Amino acid sequence: MNSRNAVILLSGGLDSATVLAIARGEGFTPHALSFRYGQRHDIELEAARRVARANGVADHVILDIDLRQFGGSALTDSIEVPKSSSVEEMPSGIPVTYVPARNTIFLAFALGFAEVRGARDIFIGVNALDYSGYPDCRPEYIAAFGRLAALATKSSVEGAPAQIHAPLIDCTKADTIRRGLSLGVDYGLTTSCYDPSPGGAACRSCDACLLRARGFAEAGAADPALS
Amino acid sequence: MNSRNAVILLSGGLDSATVLAIARGEGFTPHALSFRYGQRHDIELEAARRVARANGVADHVILDIDLRQFGGSALTDSIEVPKSSSVEEMPSGIPVTYVPARNTIFLAFALGFAEVRGARDIFIGVNALDYSGYPDCRPEYIAAFGRLAALATKSSVEGAPAQIHAPLIDCTKADTIRRGLSLGVDYGLTTSCYDPSPGGAACRSCDACLLRARGFAEAGAADPALS
Repeated sequence: MNSRNAVILLSGGLDSATVLAIARGEGFTPHALSFRYGQRHDIELEAARRVARANGVADHVILDIDLRQFGGSALTDSIEVPKSSSVEEMPSGIPVTYVPARNTIFLAFALGFAEVRGARDIFIGVNALDYSGYPDCRPEYIAAFGRLAALATKSSVEGAPAQIHAPLIDCTKADTIRRGLSLGVDYGLTTSCYDPSPGGAACRSCDACLLRARGFAEAGAADPALS
Repeated sequence: MNSRNAVILLSGGLDSATVLAIARGEGFTPHALSFRYGQRHDIELEAARRVARANGVADHVILDIDLRQFGGSALTDSIEVPKSSSVEEMPSGIPVTYVPARNTIFLAFALGFAEVRGARDIFIGVNALDYSGYPDCRPEYIAAFGRLAALATKSSVEGAPAQIHAPLIDCTKADTIRRGLSLGVDYGLTTSCYDPSPGGAACRSCDACLLRARGFAEAGAADPALS
């Protein structure tokens, strides 16, 4: 068992690509885990595959967990993605793009995958600043999952509980981009848009596009995904 | 939103059938959630369907989450189910039937399903006595999941966090059976065996069969599933 194996939750977005580079930089052998959990995800999963390939991960598992099986909810409906002209005009509160218990489900699978791969370390790219509306991106949520993980598995009973790493939790998008660029992350492989064109082009006016654009602007860098 | 909706994790076994009856007895409208997560599950899921139907659940969702997608582990191997001649001779420690992070994954989905259904209450049939080898059946684990649930969802932020109910956690199998019989549970609909025949007949010598047989003997009742 290689104690330096780590599981990285990889979405195809900017944050998780950065987290993968951070884990590699810390000497971990990354095992990437992504999810096919609903609509609009082929473009994200393609990006996740590109990022995984470019970073030489040990393996990349994409789990099918279609949350639309719950039925009768916003999850199954076609959500109108809100558009704004600037970050300041974005709606406040919990975004309509919120998916019930998503990070809990993702981290639960990561916990199982980590145990199967003999990994003690789980990396997740959550971020409390830009997405303060998501309850499962807050530091206290991540800490609570860590306490759960310390009790949840055979490994934890045997004295090797999983550790949850959320290295971007206090970072602005610009901080994340600066850190990623210093680690050589190719952000041209990533996608952030909630509402891309069928060909994958970013809409440039959803929350994710606006936060990404402001992040690159504040970091003083051009977004290679837009060039 | 009906505040009396509840999500019941339903496996087709004796414990979760009892928990479903307990939830109904407490006035909840039950929404059952089961999982197709690996091998040997058709017989269990058939039992879950029978139990759900017999108890008039509001709905019964069976989620496909094949954990064999993780690859390369005991999860994908054909596990030799250990057989013993009595409960006293059962192997100690964590059983080979342990599945990494299983209850964490099940509870995470239940948390999402509860939010989608407008339910605040989640019932799970874990039991710390008979299965002390499973880390994710212990009271401290369930308590930690409760603290996570209180932070994890939109509902929790809005002041209505999910509550995890594990009413059998301190019960012996005999306690459970007595309680279920008093509530009218038809245990003939349930299945417990880890290694049933293709037709569904219990092997009578795996851990689950032995614990079930001792439970019925101690409760002074015949097991209708064996008649």
